[in-house]
This record gives sequence, C-alpha cells and structure tokens, in this order.
Amino acid sequence: MTNNEIHIHPPVAVAEWIGQAADGFLRLLDQTLLPTETTYLDCRSREDVFDAIRRLVVRGAPAIGVAAGYGMVVGSQVIPNDADFPAELETLAAYLEKSRPTAVNLSWAVRRVLQRAKSTSGDAAAIRQAMLEEARAIHAEDEKMCLAIGRYAEKLITPGMGVLTHCNAGALATVGVGTATAGMYLAHAMGRAFTVYCDETRPLLQGSRLTAWELQQAGVNAVVITDNMAGWVMKEKRVQLVIVGADRIAANGDTANKIGTYSLAVLAARHGIPFYVAAPYSTFDLTLKSGEEIPIEQRGSEEITAGLGRRTAPEGIATYSPAFDVTPAELIYGIVTDRGIAQPVKEQTIRGLMA
Amino acid sequence: MTNNEIHIHPPVAVAEWIGQAADGFLRLLDQTLLPTETTYLDCRSREDVFDAIRRLVVRGAPAIGVAAGYGMVVGSQVIPNDADFPAELETLAAYLEKSRPTAVNLSWAVRRVLQRAKSTSGDAAAIRQAMLEEARAIHAEDEKMCLAIGRYAEKLITPGMGVLTHCNAGALATVGVGTATAGMYLAHAMGRAFTVYCDETRPLLQGSRLTAWELQQAGVNAVVITDNMAGWVMKEKRVQLVIVGADRIAANGDTANKIGTYSLAVLAARHGIPFYVAAPYSTFDLTLKSGEEIPIEQRGSEEITAGLGRRTAPEGIATYSPAFDVTPAELIYGIVTDRGIAQPVKEQTIRGLMA
Repeated sequence: MTNNEIHIHPPVAVAEWIGQAADGFLRLLDQTLLPTETTYLDCRSREDVFDAIRRLVVRGAPAIGVAAGYGMVVGSQVIPNDADFPAELETLAAYLEKSRPTAVNLSWAVRRVLQRAKSTSGDAAAIRQAMLEEARAIHAEDEKMCLAIGRYAEKLITPGMGVLTHCNAGALATVGVGTATAGMYLAHAMGRAFTVYCDETRPLLQGSRLTAWELQQAGVNAVVITDNMAGWVMKEKRVQLVIVGADRIAANGDTANKIGTYSLAVLAARHGIPFYVAAPYSTFDLTLKSGEEIPIEQRGSEEITAGLGRRTAPEGIATYSPAFDVTPAELIYGIVTDRGIAQPVKEQTIRGLMA
Repeated sequence: MTNNEIHIHPPVAVAEWIGQAADGFLRLLDQTLLPTETTYLDCRSREDVFDAIRRLVVRGAPAIGVAAGYGMVVGSQVIPNDADFPAELETLAAYLEKSRPTAVNLSWAVRRVLQRAKSTSGDAAAIRQAMLEEARAIHAEDEKMCLAIGRYAEKLITPGMGVLTHCNAGALATVGVGTATAGMYLAHAMGRAFTVYCDETRPLLQGSRLTAWELQQAGVNAVVITDNMAGWVMKEKRVQLVIVGADRIAANGDTANKIGTYSLAVLAARHGIPFYVAAPYSTFDLTLKSGEEIPIEQRGSEEITAGLGRRTAPEGIATYSPAFDVTPAELIYGIVTDRGIAQPVKEQTIRGLMA
C-alpha cells in the first residue's frame, strides 16, 4: 500500500463549521482547558470569535486562519440585508484582525474571505454563502497541506523508531494532521509502531499539554520528557529522528522555531541523529537572507517564574526569556514541506521547491 | 588582595545549633517553603529531626549530614542519665538513618557522632558535649570544604562574565557557600561583577526555587532561564563559563549529576565554552572505572505530569524520567575540588588529587 491511498483525519476537530449553510456557527475545541478537559466552544457572534482567538482557545497560525475565516461568516449574520454590505464587512474584518494583531495568517484569511464577498454579486444570502465557501476552501487547503507534508515525512519513520519532537506543531495548530506530526499520524495509520518523545517545552508546556494529548487521542505511543532530558535520551539511543515545526525559515534555510529547538539540533548533530523541520512552504521568507535577520521576541517574566499555577522563582528575580531561537541551516538535515523535501538545506533546494 | 584573605559566610544558615551547650536545639531553614517564604524550623526532638530530613526541609548531601549529626545530640537529650547510653544511641542512630535511607552522608555523619560518643568516657553530660563537638566539627569541615573549592573556582570568574549553572549545588545543599556556587560567592565578595544564568532545572525546579534565591540573598546578579534556553544563551555569547555540581564521579572523570547536565556539556563544547564540575574530592568513587557503571535512578511520572501545582500532561500518558545523567570526561574542562583542580580530566590527574 502506498501512502497516497491512505486518507486520514485529524485526531480531533480543532475548528469546525456546524450546519450546511451560512446560518450555521463555528465550533472550536477549547485548547485552554487541555489536557484535562475536552470541551468545545460554540461561537455564534463576532464577539465570540474575537474572544476565542484572543484567549487562545484556538492557536497555531493555520488554525487561527481557519477560525477567522469562519468568523467572517458568523460575524456577517447580523448585518441587515439592506445594509452597505461591503462597508460592514470591512468593519468586521478590521475588528477580527485586532483579536491577535501579530498573527499574519489571521489577517490573510480574513482578507481572503472579504475579497471573495466583494467579488460576489447577488443578495446578502448569496454573499454569505460565497464567504462560507471561501472559509471552507481555506479549511480544506490546510488539511491538504498537512497531508502533503505527511506523505513526505512518514517515509522517515521506520518501525520501532524513537522520534523526538518539540512544542506543538501538531494537529492542534492546524485543522489537519499538523506539520511536524503529519508523518507520525500517517505512519501510525499505515500500521507502523514507533514512539514519540515529546519535550514538555517550557515555559508554556505545549509539548506536554498539547502534543502528548493529541498523539494520545490518536493512539500514537507518546512519552513526555522534560526539555533537559532530550540529550540524555539521545545518548541512550532511544531516539533516531527529530522532527520539529517552524515559525519562519530564511532563504538559506536558517529556521526560527520555539525556544529549545536550537539546542535539540546541536544535540542531534552530536549523536548523528537526523534533524528535520516540517512546515508548509509558505513558512519560507525569501526576503530574509539568513536567520540573523529574524527578530527574536522576548516574553514576560511571569511565564518562567509563576507560569505553572504557583510561584517557582523568588520575587524580584531577573529572567531572560526568548520565545524563539534560530537553528542554522547547517544543523538541519532536511526541511519537509507540502511540496517536497529541501535537502541538503540550502538556498538552491529551497528555491527549487518554491518555483 | 589574594583570595586567602577573604573569609565569607554562607548567604543563609541552612542548619545551625542554637545554644552553647548540648541542651540546645537544631534550627533548620525550611527549604520546602522556598522561594516564597523564609521560615526556620526548630528541631527539639529526634522526631522533629527525622521528619525534617524526610520532608526535605533540609536537602543536599553535606547539609543532611550536618543536620543528622546535630540530630544525634538533640535525640540524646531525652535519654536518662542512668540508661545504657551506648545502646540507646545505637537505637537513635538507626532511627535517624531511616529518615532518608539512600543518603550516604546521613549515615556517615550519624555513625561518626556515635563513634565519638562511644569513645568518650565520663557521664551522660560529658558524652553529649563530645557529641556536640563532633557534630560541630562536621559542620566546620563542610564550611571549610566549600571555601576551599571556592578559592580555586573564583579564579575562573572574570569581570563581566556570564556563568551558567544547573540545579542547586549551592549554599543550600551545604552548610557553607556551596560547591558549584562557592567560586561565585567568593568572586562576588572580591568585588567582581558578573551574571549567573540559573537553569530552572525541571522537574523539581531546584535552579529557580533554590539557586536563584540564594544568589539573590547574597546580592549576586542572577537570571533564571528555562532549561531549553541554555543553548541559545550560549549561542548569543551571554555565557563564558559553565559550572555544575556532581553526585558521583568515576575514576576516569565521567560525572553523574542532575538530568540536563550532559546536554549542557554538549552545548558548551559546541560553543567552545569551558565546562567545569565543582565537588568535594569525596565525590570521586575510584571503584567505578567509568560512568557506565553508575546506575541511573528513574523518578515517578507525577513530577513531570503534575509536579508544578497543576496537571500539565494528559492522564495516563507515559513519561521517561531519569533523575541523573552522566557527562563523559572528554566534555569536562576541569573538575574543581577542595584539593585543587583535576585538569585535564583523566584518571592520573584525579588520582593525583586523591593521593
């Protein structure tokens, strides 16, 4: 059986349109309650959608984009049929964009649905229906993108292997099978047995709260470790492959991802373990020559000193908290995209995929 | 000014005998309440001492030894003057040893005070006084050991430097200025300005809860980072020296220490940063040829999945939780002991210090 014959679904519905027509609503998995509660939140107004995105009920660039796309449809439901529809939709779009101003995908999805509305002729009902179609198209494209990554990545996973991942570049960050996790879900569906070591990923614990949870939902054998155990787990030969996601990839292959990724890449190199990045090709930013041009966001102290339900560092102590780090291309064995694998990681192979 | 002229005191009294004579009591800093509360616990009975050691009010091999030594004196106070003193003391020693059965230092200290009692002639008062002298000797030796390590280690710390440490091999684990921290306190007392990056050290957070706290008490500039930030902090050239403690060192220099130490050593090597271990020479176990003979304790799941005040991983998830790892001698730049520095790290230099 080739992997093209396998069609798998995400382990959980992160964002879903309930109802056939544009008078339906958006249902989101409430990720703020994971891993202890699996609760869905129904968004029936633009305020519901705004609040859900702002509170991180839905997170991960692709999933936010899909939610915002559906949010345009939900938000349009209260616009009177005789109103100035384009103007009202502009207001709605601007409102939703403010829910997470730095999320590029959010703005992109909102603008795409808005554009579709503007280019649709007919009454309000026809426009809403076209908007829903566009939101669904964004949804379907994301699912397809994940599966495409998975079809390349599953080949890297062999029976009995240990695979290490960091943070959550999983199904929960998309509306498909995730990016770093896509190959895992496909290999699992093909009957392969393997173990995924999930770094818990301090400070916000996306690895233990989210990645371990979604793999568990799908029946994939997941083992949680603290971040500082990764090197020793490699030394003990428990891991033969590392796959992580990416937030931004420069033209030369330097990759920005969750803090801790760089350390993993160094450790993997020391142990001769292939280190892969998995991400949609849209993650490449060819305007950046190298990772040195990627700015590193600094996070507040509280996530380190009191982010876990109680205070774990003294009052008044200094912290240093980069949200991301940059892994140099030389430490990356390959970059798996929905268009193929860039390998070796260098500008030519990357531009080859983008062409 | 040479560092021999500097005499510094620990930033806090971890274990202290209150009163001049043997009718005093043991006062312990309650480390279970750090970093939010600085509370002292007075131990006036053998049960108090037993409970304090068992509950980790006092932790760290040297500090436990000192507490147990004083515990022998406290426990002897209720023995009637006309009792079979040696037999009663044997019972007391056996009782205290059970408070933390795996703590080698505890048994060593208890037996040493017991031996002193047995070799003392005179009445009960004279024996108790001799026991207190012995407990105080253990205390003084530990302080001296820390200071001796510090006199070698402070030379490694230059003005403006960033020093990274892991877990707590600090004053709180001893009754002196600690082992990995000893050079820091001395350099600070000599007026040198530098920054200590403290790995928070999951799962039990000794770095953020304890090391950051004690450095803050002493006015040393401490910055807390999560464990997965260490590599990036090195990449950004914020760190020029790594100093960690040790639980056990094999004859060839392979060193067992808190999980995460091995990763730090690999990262330091990648960045050309000297990686030092600081430990009393008694940490060497020459009966072990190499680190491969050091067994690695496994910890329970809860410390990873729910160790921080709330559940951070799904119910039923697997974990892997080695308490320690072993750093190969080849990655260790030098081992700083109270007898000098073993450098290069190999059996000859280590045996040279032991001779």
